[in-house]
Amino acid sequence: MDKQSDQKSRLERQLEFIREIDKEKEIIRQTYLADGSRKEGDAEHAWHMAIMTAILAEYSNEKIDVLHTILMLLIHDLVEIDAGDTYAYDPAAKKTQKKREMTAADRIFRLLPDDQAKLFRGIWDEFEAWETPEAKFAHTMDNLQPMILNDASDGRSWVEHEVSLAPILARNERTHEGSEELWKYQKEEIIGKHLKKGHIRPE
Amino acid sequence: MDKQSDQKSRLERQLEFIREIDKEKEIIRQTYLADGSRKEGDAEHAWHMAIMTAILAEYSNEKIDVLHTILMLLIHDLVEIDAGDTYAYDPAAKKTQKKREMTAADRIFRLLPDDQAKLFRGIWDEFEAWETPEAKFAHTMDNLQPMILNDASDGRSWVEHEVSLAPILARNERTHEGSEELWKYQKEEIIGKHLKKGHIRPE
Repeated sequence: MDKQSDQKSRLERQLEFIREIDKEKEIIRQTYLADGSRKEGDAEHAWHMAIMTAILAEYSNEKIDVLHTILMLLIHDLVEIDAGDTYAYDPAAKKTQKKREMTAADRIFRLLPDDQAKLFRGIWDEFEAWETPEAKFAHTMDNLQPMILNDASDGRSWVEHEVSLAPILARNERTHEGSEELWKYQKEEIIGKHLKKGHIRPE
Repeated sequence: MDKQSDQKSRLERQLEFIREIDKEKEIIRQTYLADGSRKEGDAEHAWHMAIMTAILAEYSNEKIDVLHTILMLLIHDLVEIDAGDTYAYDPAAKKTQKKREMTAADRIFRLLPDDQAKLFRGIWDEFEAWETPEAKFAHTMDNLQPMILNDASDGRSWVEHEVSLAPILARNERTHEGSEELWKYQKEEIIGKHLKKGHIRPE
């Protein structure tokens, strides 16, 4: 194959991936927008966290590569195109989540040219493994962002799902690994406030 | 002020900005999603272009700082929170766009701590000035992304607005400055196809 046609086939694969990921916009999360008008979509959630990372990286426990962390957050939910959104407080769905998402990652990232497929899949695996400073901070963002929205919408999603303190703390068991300071804020200023207001059940 | 309260006030300003920009999710563009099911929101558009930049940066005419370009695209539409979305082919709205957006930038970025306000405003001004390699590539993404969606939805937005070739070419007069290769694809494979299909008016 000459360079010209090889080049074209590479661009076509990249554009196929770009068209495919458009579907992420239609995956709806359980979190309401700050004004409570509707629930947010996965792509909106990722966009919000990418900007948050640029602003809040200074609170990371360890120095992070900001671009790497932003890329991780931008793509971490692409698997939900096939696997769907798994609500954090739905234990039955949580059980099958890993397998569904691995299968999805196999299909979606392979649409890209091999080098980029490997790169993106590596970043996604890194997020899932939760070991690097970037993955830890990305998870902190992934937990903090819906908290900020739940707080702004006066705890609407917590109230609707009758969420109690124990599963929130369980979900956030490792949030502090990305940023002790942001976890402290989240615990004291957000969770504490909504416990007092009765939006989060104490039991 | 001691360091503790100074620190808190900084975080509070950052979180105020993070809550404020949530409003961008509710600004609807004229472009349909790839499957034509609904129009896309500004935040979704920005998310899509940020990933596109990571994938397509290799086609940039000049070497670009990928993080800088992604940040530019993530925040470039925040001014629409106050100024609204201006449809690319609405000449009356285009006339007042610049002034409306400058006023919006003055208000929105100033929510951040001073150093970050200056940084973000600088990146926004850089996008508007269209001079650096990063700004040129960001504009190429900003023009290519809706083309990809219009193409995928079989030209729906062009047909609805009865768009003709001349304004499309006028809007894309500088698209090539970011990437000759992507502009060539856009012109030949997308615009050319939809002219033939009658979705874009030839006159």
